[in-house]
Amino acid sequence: MLPELREKFAQIVGEANALSAPDMIESYLTEPRELFGGLTPLVLRPATREEVAAIMKLANETGTAIVPQGGNTGLVGGQQPDRSGTQVIVSLSRLNKIRNIDISANQITVEAGVILQNVQQAAEEVERLFPLSLGAEGSCQIGGNLSTNAGGTGVIAYGNARELCMGLEVVLPDGRILDDLRTVKKDNTGYNLTNLFIGAEGTLGIITAAVMKLFPRPRGKAVAYVGLKTPAEALKLFTLAQDKAGSMLTGFELIASLAMAATLIHNSQIRSPFDGGASAHEWFVLLDISSTRSDEEARNLMEEILGQAWEEEIIDDAVLAANRGQEKDFWTLREQISPAQKIYGAEIKQDISVPIPSIPDFIREANADVEKMLPGCRIVCFGHMGDGNLHYDIAQAEGDDSQEFLSHWKEVSHHVHALSMRYRGSFSAEHGVGQLKREDLVYFKSPVAVDLMRSFKRLLDPKGIMNPGKML
Amino acid sequence: MLPELREKFAQIVGEANALSAPDMIESYLTEPRELFGGLTPLVLRPATREEVAAIMKLANETGTAIVPQGGNTGLVGGQQPDRSGTQVIVSLSRLNKIRNIDISANQITVEAGVILQNVQQAAEEVERLFPLSLGAEGSCQIGGNLSTNAGGTGVIAYGNARELCMGLEVVLPDGRILDDLRTVKKDNTGYNLTNLFIGAEGTLGIITAAVMKLFPRPRGKAVAYVGLKTPAEALKLFTLAQDKAGSMLTGFELIASLAMAATLIHNSQIRSPFDGGASAHEWFVLLDISSTRSDEEARNLMEEILGQAWEEEIIDDAVLAANRGQEKDFWTLREQISPAQKIYGAEIKQDISVPIPSIPDFIREANADVEKMLPGCRIVCFGHMGDGNLHYDIAQAEGDDSQEFLSHWKEVSHHVHALSMRYRGSFSAEHGVGQLKREDLVYFKSPVAVDLMRSFKRLLDPKGIMNPGKML
Repeated sequence: MLPELREKFAQIVGEANALSAPDMIESYLTEPRELFGGLTPLVLRPATREEVAAIMKLANETGTAIVPQGGNTGLVGGQQPDRSGTQVIVSLSRLNKIRNIDISANQITVEAGVILQNVQQAAEEVERLFPLSLGAEGSCQIGGNLSTNAGGTGVIAYGNARELCMGLEVVLPDGRILDDLRTVKKDNTGYNLTNLFIGAEGTLGIITAAVMKLFPRPRGKAVAYVGLKTPAEALKLFTLAQDKAGSMLTGFELIASLAMAATLIHNSQIRSPFDGGASAHEWFVLLDISSTRSDEEARNLMEEILGQAWEEEIIDDAVLAANRGQEKDFWTLREQISPAQKIYGAEIKQDISVPIPSIPDFIREANADVEKMLPGCRIVCFGHMGDGNLHYDIAQAEGDDSQEFLSHWKEVSHHVHALSMRYRGSFSAEHGVGQLKREDLVYFKSPVAVDLMRSFKRLLDPKGIMNPGKML
Repeated sequence: MLPELREKFAQIVGEANALSAPDMIESYLTEPRELFGGLTPLVLRPATREEVAAIMKLANETGTAIVPQGGNTGLVGGQQPDRSGTQVIVSLSRLNKIRNIDISANQITVEAGVILQNVQQAAEEVERLFPLSLGAEGSCQIGGNLSTNAGGTGVIAYGNARELCMGLEVVLPDGRILDDLRTVKKDNTGYNLTNLFIGAEGTLGIITAAVMKLFPRPRGKAVAYVGLKTPAEALKLFTLAQDKAGSMLTGFELIASLAMAATLIHNSQIRSPFDGGASAHEWFVLLDISSTRSDEEARNLMEEILGQAWEEEIIDDAVLAANRGQEKDFWTLREQISPAQKIYGAEIKQDISVPIPSIPDFIREANADVEKMLPGCRIVCFGHMGDGNLHYDIAQAEGDDSQEFLSHWKEVSHHVHALSMRYRGSFSAEHGVGQLKREDLVYFKSPVAVDLMRSFKRLLDPKGIMNPGKML
């Protein structure tokens, strides 16, 4: 990068926020799975949308590629530059103001760099719920959540990031600012622009602010761990729970014995709700019910569901959390699967979704295929069954060579993705496309859809400077 | 239209479904308010998406303008051709198959021409709820509902047509078919295309099918009519009801005394819940609460809300419907306002929204301005307060000249729209833009937003054959 150009970019944000020293930029270049290490000549940290706009204007004039970055927690490389050393990172961290909270309208207007947990806390302080919740919530940012249409555990009752967003403010690749910060639910005035930028992974512009929905805080809760024989029983339980609880069903997580075992082995302080630990049953379900009124209401409903499931011989055992502490423990047992999985060695990971009724068939078919492809492998299957979303991870056989095992990633992953697509599911449920699944996108999406996406990209970013090499 | 071209179009759908005789096409050219009478050389009635695709291909080759039409119930002229006599109407009525109902996944896949009521009934038959509900549901079609992002009475709990749609099948202006019929909730694979076509009023393509969400059917209900002093009290009641009932709050309609009076005068068989009829109170609220469990639960919740509202002196009177019949009567009293309004003579009508907390201020300010502009006029204000959506209609002063009164439409409407925009609301909440509000769109939307919309239009429809003269 020419010194004069670096100087011009630095002038926009001030020298203190234009980072080039290796030790200063290292954290921007290291991503969670260490699969996509890139290089950058410059990390810019603008503090206002006007500064972001000035950066994009200069980038557009000079043909400089820009990689927008939030909390840098993405799992598909969408927030990382390539290895050319020419792509400038624009970190949104300093756009971290909560512009407005309106409790009567149940809305919060936040800048892109606000950390997810801080949005949750701001909502809590005014007795409201901001339901987006995921593992990385302590460091991921709302702009990144929107750019990737983040999912997580609250989706079953409240929807993805997309459903929680009323409107956006976006800096376009040419530096213009689009103010689409709508605050009303009903607004039929032209094409919906906001939804094109949500989930676009920063390839069409930079989200700088958003109006997000808030919800009444549930006053009551009931959480139960259930043991059952197969995903088919889990599906029956889901249908029953949804029928009885409707929108009060706020969590339905499916967990294979091997996934639960990982947490229990990896975290000796976490106890199993069941005698016999993870081997007590083949499959488990974590059920979460919320009430706007009282614990009693949530608990009664839970007992009604479990009672009927018991009578109909859908479930083999169930433990209801006795207090808030145990409720938290039950969720921890689920949430710790991801970090605990590594005890099984190398893993080939898939984030897929299929229509909920197809989950038992999908798992049966995928297991049979994968066990044939990778004899002795251990399938660590778990996920948000209530959203049709499975983390279908495959660990190496005990004692096998990790590198040899990982050399099958492409072939196995493609096979699992193809199976999810046969069920009219998705090869990327909540993590996005980024760099990891670009080939899948072209392979699995219809040519008409891919052509439309490319047309939109060319239209908004004719110079191809906006997060190049991602998604398309 | 040249006979050879007419012949080619007719061959696609068969002569019986290519209508040109005046008596055959009359019903396609007459719209509810009779504001937008147009002309057409030909009405085509395709029966499959392939026929729609063939029509668009031919239209694209020959530069023939196409006006897609559903149930022809729109209020802004979006489904009507202009007066040139060159625009061909494509009626979707014969694409009326329900392709699939999946009760475990709570989804229904319907073709564009299925009448809304038939979608509701198909859901009911499998013990599910399809919550989109509006006055024209007996004749409007789901494709039109999606093209206009229809609202109605169910929005407060379930959202607009957009929120109810998982994915679309669309025939593009060049005749290509986009299959974006997604059936999974989590699918982060590229730009979201479906949302661009929802609410585009047929200007970017023709929706031919959709996957729509179903919900558990509420088993319990409670409906109450409340009398209170001002919209400020109604806002307090809304905040209280939302806090207590959360997602169980399934209706919150605000009704001015003059609006209620219209129904009671126009329909002598409808009785007022209150002694003293419409003059018993200045304002009324219709409250609707649903329970997935029982009437008892809904009723207890309603009593709790009304009890607290009474203690806090928010409301002056409340009548709880005693049975299903009375519940229906209460809703009829609200739904009949629209047709009954005509008893006041000529009206200037606005369909606006503002953030819910601003409703009292908006009404106060709008009333003061409008009464100054049109001395003696009668303001018939009612609407879906729970969505921030008001039908702010203005009737002529008694005995005034209708034509003279209506000559103020543009000026008064513009003023009311400008006021709603000052509150960061919308000048078209649920009816859309069509022909009626094209000037408003350019005036009120930001230049960047309008420019983006025009770019999308040019990109997808470079020849300008797709419903020209609408929206943009």
